[in-house]
Amino acid sequence: MPEPDLDVVALGSAIVDVIATADEDVVAAHGLVKGTMALVDTDRAEELYAAMGPAVEVSGGSAANTAAGVASFGGTAGFVGKVRDDQLGAVFAHDIRSAGVVFETAPASDGPPTARCLVLVTPDAQRTMSTFLGAATGLAADDVDAALIERAQITYLEGYLWDPPEAIDALRRAIALAHDAGRRVAFTLSDPFCVDRHRHEFLDLVRADVDVLFANEIEILSLFQVDDLKEALERVRDLCDVAAVTRSEHGSVVVSGGDTISVPAVPVARVVDTTGAGDLYAAGFLYGLARGESLRQCAELGSLAAAEVIAHVGARPQVPLASLLA
Amino acid sequence: MPEPDLDVVALGSAIVDVIATADEDVVAAHGLVKGTMALVDTDRAEELYAAMGPAVEVSGGSAANTAAGVASFGGTAGFVGKVRDDQLGAVFAHDIRSAGVVFETAPASDGPPTARCLVLVTPDAQRTMSTFLGAATGLAADDVDAALIERAQITYLEGYLWDPPEAIDALRRAIALAHDAGRRVAFTLSDPFCVDRHRHEFLDLVRADVDVLFANEIEILSLFQVDDLKEALERVRDLCDVAAVTRSEHGSVVVSGGDTISVPAVPVARVVDTTGAGDLYAAGFLYGLARGESLRQCAELGSLAAAEVIAHVGARPQVPLASLLA
Repeated sequence: MPEPDLDVVALGSAIVDVIATADEDVVAAHGLVKGTMALVDTDRAEELYAAMGPAVEVSGGSAANTAAGVASFGGTAGFVGKVRDDQLGAVFAHDIRSAGVVFETAPASDGPPTARCLVLVTPDAQRTMSTFLGAATGLAADDVDAALIERAQITYLEGYLWDPPEAIDALRRAIALAHDAGRRVAFTLSDPFCVDRHRHEFLDLVRADVDVLFANEIEILSLFQVDDLKEALERVRDLCDVAAVTRSEHGSVVVSGGDTISVPAVPVARVVDTTGAGDLYAAGFLYGLARGESLRQCAELGSLAAAEVIAHVGARPQVPLASLLA
Repeated sequence: MPEPDLDVVALGSAIVDVIATADEDVVAAHGLVKGTMALVDTDRAEELYAAMGPAVEVSGGSAANTAAGVASFGGTAGFVGKVRDDQLGAVFAHDIRSAGVVFETAPASDGPPTARCLVLVTPDAQRTMSTFLGAATGLAADDVDAALIERAQITYLEGYLWDPPEAIDALRRAIALAHDAGRRVAFTLSDPFCVDRHRHEFLDLVRADVDVLFANEIEILSLFQVDDLKEALERVRDLCDVAAVTRSEHGSVVVSGGDTISVPAVPVARVVDTTGAGDLYAAGFLYGLARGESLRQCAELGSLAAAEVIAHVGARPQVPLASLLA
C-alpha cells in the first residue's frame, strides 16, 4: 500500500444550492422547520421554488463543501458523488474541480436531474433547506474508486447519504476499502431529522466503523436520545476515537479517550448565512488531523473555517482559508 | 388605446451570469479587455469556464436587470427575451418573475442552450464579461407581444440586442409598436465595443427612434468618435429628447433641450462588483420618468440604484430599492 497522498476523500450528495432570503413567515407558511433539512420530491420542489424570491445558485452538498474547504486550506482532497450530465451537473463539477478537489465520479446519463437544495435564509441568518436529491440517489458501489479511497488518509462520509437506499452499498464499500488500507473513517450526523430517520444504523456505524465523529449539539443529543450534553459526550467517548461536537457561537467540544477539549468560536462581525458552518468546521478539523495537528488545533482550524463561511451567502469559502492562517 | 399600466417593458438578451473573482493576470492571460463585454462561441466559453475559479450563478442580462430594478422600486415592468427550456432557462424565468416582472416570452424548445455570461470580477471591483448568447439569439419578431408593448409607458432596448442579427426584427417591431401607441422608446449603448460594432445603426436609431438615451462616458465618446465629453453632450442634445450619461464615481450628466443637469454618485462604503451599475442606473431613471419625476430626480434615483448594486456581487438588487427611498 503506497503512502496516502490525499488528506481527505469525501462521499456525499452532489448538490447545487439555490439560495434566497425569506422572511420567517414564508418558512412557516410552507410547513418547513427552520434550521433543518427536509427531503422533497419533484412536485414539492417546484412548488417551493415558485414561492421563493430571486435566488443565486452556488455549488453545495455537505461533504462536497467539506472537501472544498480542505482544499481551500491548501490540503488535498477528493470527492465522490453523483450528478446528471445536465447544466447544474456541469456547474457542480466545474466548481469542485476549480476549487482543487479531485472529482471523477461519472455523471449519470439518464434518470433524474442533478440534485438541488432550496435554501431559505431568514433574517436571523439561519438556513432552512429543502433538498431534491435527484441524480444524487444514483450513487452506486461502482462509483467508489478503490484507488481514490486508498489514496486518502481520511475517508469522510455524510449522514445524509443514508437517505438514498442505493447509496448505502457505496458507503459500505468506501468504509471497507478505507479500513482495509489502514485509513481512518470520519462521519457527520448531518441533521437532527436525519438522525431520527437512521438512529439505529448510525449508532451501529459509529460503534463499529467511525474513527472521527462530527455532530452539532442537537444531533448528538438526538443520537443518544438524551437531553444533557454531558451525558451525550460520555456516551460518545466510549464509541469512537474522536468526537467533535459543534455548539454554534459557543464553539466546540472534542472528546477523545480521557480528554475533553473546549474551543471557542471565532467571532464574526455579522453572521449572514449559517449554511455550511458544520461542513467547514469539519474541513478545518480534518485538514488539521491529516496534517498531524493536536485535537485542540484541529478544533481551532474548524472554528476558523466556520467563521469565514457564515460571514457570507453560500456554503463554500470565498477567500482561500490558507490565507487566514496567521 | 387604454392607459399604460406598466412603467417599463425591456427587451434584451436573457442571460444567466456566472460570476467568479479573478486576478488581473487571469484577465490578461485570456486576452480579455477589462471592463468590457466580448461575445464568445461555445468552445471559447468552455475554455474560459474551465479556467475560472468556483463561481456563483445569478440571473443577469442588461435589460433584464433594468426591468428587475424597476420592479424593485415598486414599479411595474415587463421583459421580453429568449431562453431555452433548460435548467438555466428555468433559473432565469424564476428569478425575473419572482422579482415581480411580467415575463411571458416562450422558451425555445430546441437549438442552443440558455445564454450565459462569464463574469470575472477583479480586485478593483471591475467586471470583464464573456457572453455566450446561445438561445438569446433566437429572439424573433413573433416574440414581441403587441399588447405588452402597448401596456408600457416606456419601451427600453439594450444595444447588445443588435449583435444577434435575428433580433433586429424584434427590435424594429417593438419600436414601431411603441411609437404607434404614443409611448416613449429608451435605449442603452451597452458597451464601447458594442458601439464600435454598430455605430452607424446606433446613430440612425438615436436620431430617428430614441426618446431617452443611456450611455456611459466611454460609450458616448465612441458613438460620436470624439474625445471630449462636452462635445459629445452637445452632439447628443440635438439627437434625442433626453440623454443620461453615467460617469462612475463622478455621477451622471443629463442633457435635455437646453438643460444640462449634473448629479453626483451616491457614496458606497466598499465597491465590490460593478456589474449592473449602468443597468440599475437606467432602472432608477426610467422608474422616475414613468412616475413623472423631474430629470434631476430621475438621475438621483439612478444613482441610488447603482450604489446598491455595486456594493455586492451580482447585477440585481439584494434589497427592495423602494426601501432605500427615504
